Amino acid sequence: MTHKVLLLPGDGIGPEIAAQAARLLKACQEAGLDIEVEEGLVGGSAYEVHGEPLPAETLEKAKAASAILLGAVGGPKWDKLEDLSKRPEKGLLGLRKNLGLFGNLRPAMLYPQLASASSLKPELVAGLDIMIVRELTGGIYFGQPRGIEERNGERVGFNTYVYSESEIERIGRVAFEMAQKRGKKLCSVDKANVLEVTILWREVMERLAPEYPDVELSHMYVDNAAMQLVRAPKQFDVVVTGNMFGDILSDAAAMLTGSIGMLPSASLNESGQGMYEPCHGSAPDIAGQNIANPLAMMLSVAMMLRYSLNEAAMAERIEAAVGSVLDDGLRTADIASEGTRRVSTVEMGDAVLAAF
Amino acid sequence: MTHKVLLLPGDGIGPEIAAQAARLLKACQEAGLDIEVEEGLVGGSAYEVHGEPLPAETLEKAKAASAILLGAVGGPKWDKLEDLSKRPEKGLLGLRKNLGLFGNLRPAMLYPQLASASSLKPELVAGLDIMIVRELTGGIYFGQPRGIEERNGERVGFNTYVYSESEIERIGRVAFEMAQKRGKKLCSVDKANVLEVTILWREVMERLAPEYPDVELSHMYVDNAAMQLVRAPKQFDVVVTGNMFGDILSDAAAMLTGSIGMLPSASLNESGQGMYEPCHGSAPDIAGQNIANPLAMMLSVAMMLRYSLNEAAMAERIEAAVGSVLDDGLRTADIASEGTRRVSTVEMGDAVLAAF
Ligand SMILES: CC(C)[C@H](C(=O)O)[C@@H](O)C(=O)O
Ligand SMILES: CC(C)[C@H](C(=O)O)[C@@H](O)C(=O)O
Repeated sequence: MTHKVLLLPGDGIGPEIAAQAARLLKACQEAGLDIEVEEGLVGGSAYEVHGEPLPAETLEKAKAASAILLGAVGGPKWDKLEDLSKRPEKGLLGLRKNLGLFGNLRPAMLYPQLASASSLKPELVAGLDIMIVRELTGGIYFGQPRGIEERNGERVGFNTYVYSESEIERIGRVAFEMAQKRGKKLCSVDKANVLEVTILWREVMERLAPEYPDVELSHMYVDNAAMQLVRAPKQFDVVVTGNMFGDILSDAAAMLTGSIGMLPSASLNESGQGMYEPCHGSAPDIAGQNIANPLAMMLSVAMMLRYSLNEAAMAERIEAAVGSVLDDGLRTADIASEGTRRVSTVEMGDAVLAAF
Repeated sequence: MTHKVLLLPGDGIGPEIAAQAARLLKACQEAGLDIEVEEGLVGGSAYEVHGEPLPAETLEKAKAASAILLGAVGGPKWDKLEDLSKRPEKGLLGLRKNLGLFGNLRPAMLYPQLASASSLKPELVAGLDIMIVRELTGGIYFGQPRGIEERNGERVGFNTYVYSESEIERIGRVAFEMAQKRGKKLCSVDKANVLEVTILWREVMERLAPEYPDVELSHMYVDNAAMQLVRAPKQFDVVVTGNMFGDILSDAAAMLTGSIGMLPSASLNESGQGMYEPCHGSAPDIAGQNIANPLAMMLSVAMMLRYSLNEAAMAERIEAAVGSVLDDGLRTADIASEGTRRVSTVEMGDAVLAAF
């Protein structure tokens, strides 16, 4: 059966890195992968054409696809849009919500070749390999009521942080299963000493634990988790948390590696359909200069092959190609260091393809 | 006029470090400071005696005091209390709310003597000096409605993240004024690409900016702020944010120094009354062993002298005493390193008093 893959370049550096992913997809096809690749508009670039960050056409294509590859969305150009529903980010949030992509996997791992890129002391991050499992379709991102309104003669802004037992259980199971496949340690992050919604979160995690007797479950308050990530990140294996805390902690964890330009992510729904994207943003400041790092995007292709297309062997070929390119000392500007060879976005794409 | 100072030792290591603060207060009195010191119960230790984390008696004493010195609250013993309103943390939150202590100042600075304690590379943190201004009596910590209830046959937990214009303006002014006294850079942290409440936050900060033309205002999304703290913390001078984001970011920033046992904090209300406490927690795992670091607590005394009692000269004497003790190589376990002399909680107190 031919899998449909939807490529959504998005904004900023998105199109440049998506172009390298497109070349890689073609190479996979030539190597026997049975896929059909379509493209679509999302984010600010969709807004420019259709007046909406998530046009109906894109959503239809996304629903029909086995997997979506997204570059990045957003930029200063659209930050001033009064109507929040028109902002590029809403394209991303709309895809997550409409496709039910509740399970966000954000690995933070340190490539040995890039150990010196971390801002942390080498001994604290050598071998770092954390998987953050973030709930992606609930919590304060989508909670109702929300808005800005007049109360007692002044404006008040409000959002609602809400989770139901079934939402918590669903992401909890993803995290426990992930821990079973990895180091068998799961840390659930909440603020149960202050927020009722996270008391329920903790309770549900506790209730699930006996079903996964081989996994050691612990709990940590979010403020402490932020500290422990800075102090001793290697204590973590799998971390599970809600949408907002996950946004913050996964970015902090990714940055610990010093090479966020290397990190892919997956967002999965219950039927295994997935959206794959780099952990980094659209980096408008360096867009159009052919200097962005395409590796997170190319590694997102690998993650897609593994999680949505069940093509682990081909995923490994891509990962090995990236490893050998790093071994050869090729680096885009963001990961450059002394004694390495600085290459452009396209040159990095060339090198991975040659090694594939 | 005799100032009343209320000392609330709290739980865990609280009583041990509070004892050193009490000795320091006595030394200040002997040096001519006109204060009257009372003690009170708060947190788990208050719950044990009165069945409440914030007994009426403690609240009365707190209201009558010019300043409050708090050790720390909380511990595993009370983490299982079903009734959230009885947990130690509610003692702290109750004090903040009842006294209107909306302005939380959390400095993250690196003592040059302790530069090697940071988990970050020395060049990234040398000279680090950030002031995080956190709103402390609003936001999701206190927002209504909140709770856990049955909806459509399952339980749902919910909290409300809410800020009014006047709340935002009030903390904004504290932050702008702080920036004026420091490096004249203010970074406001929000999640205005997703949360309406922080769109209002950003708008109010923008509106205040023209009144402080000497301060350069910037905005950053909270996920990016967490990354930037890890990547290049010295880019920050003053950071202003809401209660929840402030909780997370101030702990991360404090941990960057590697010596959270050194950092005091202040929580102020509109009339200058303040509560002063270490940034660290109650550390139940090391309680009762005479090994906790009393310096954050002793430096909280200095911060109190400066902000609530208008005794800057005596504050400086304390800070200088702490500096000279560090110069002499004395270290509690948490900040120990090769070639330094390991001392107990009481010995550290002795040394600061001797140098005072
Ligand atoms: C762009 C933004 C809406 C998004 C989020 O907050 O989820 C991004 O930060 C992410 O983490 O994917
Ligand atoms: C103990 C807890 C309620 C408190 C908070 O979250 O505010 C603490 O973490 C702090 O930062 O002072």
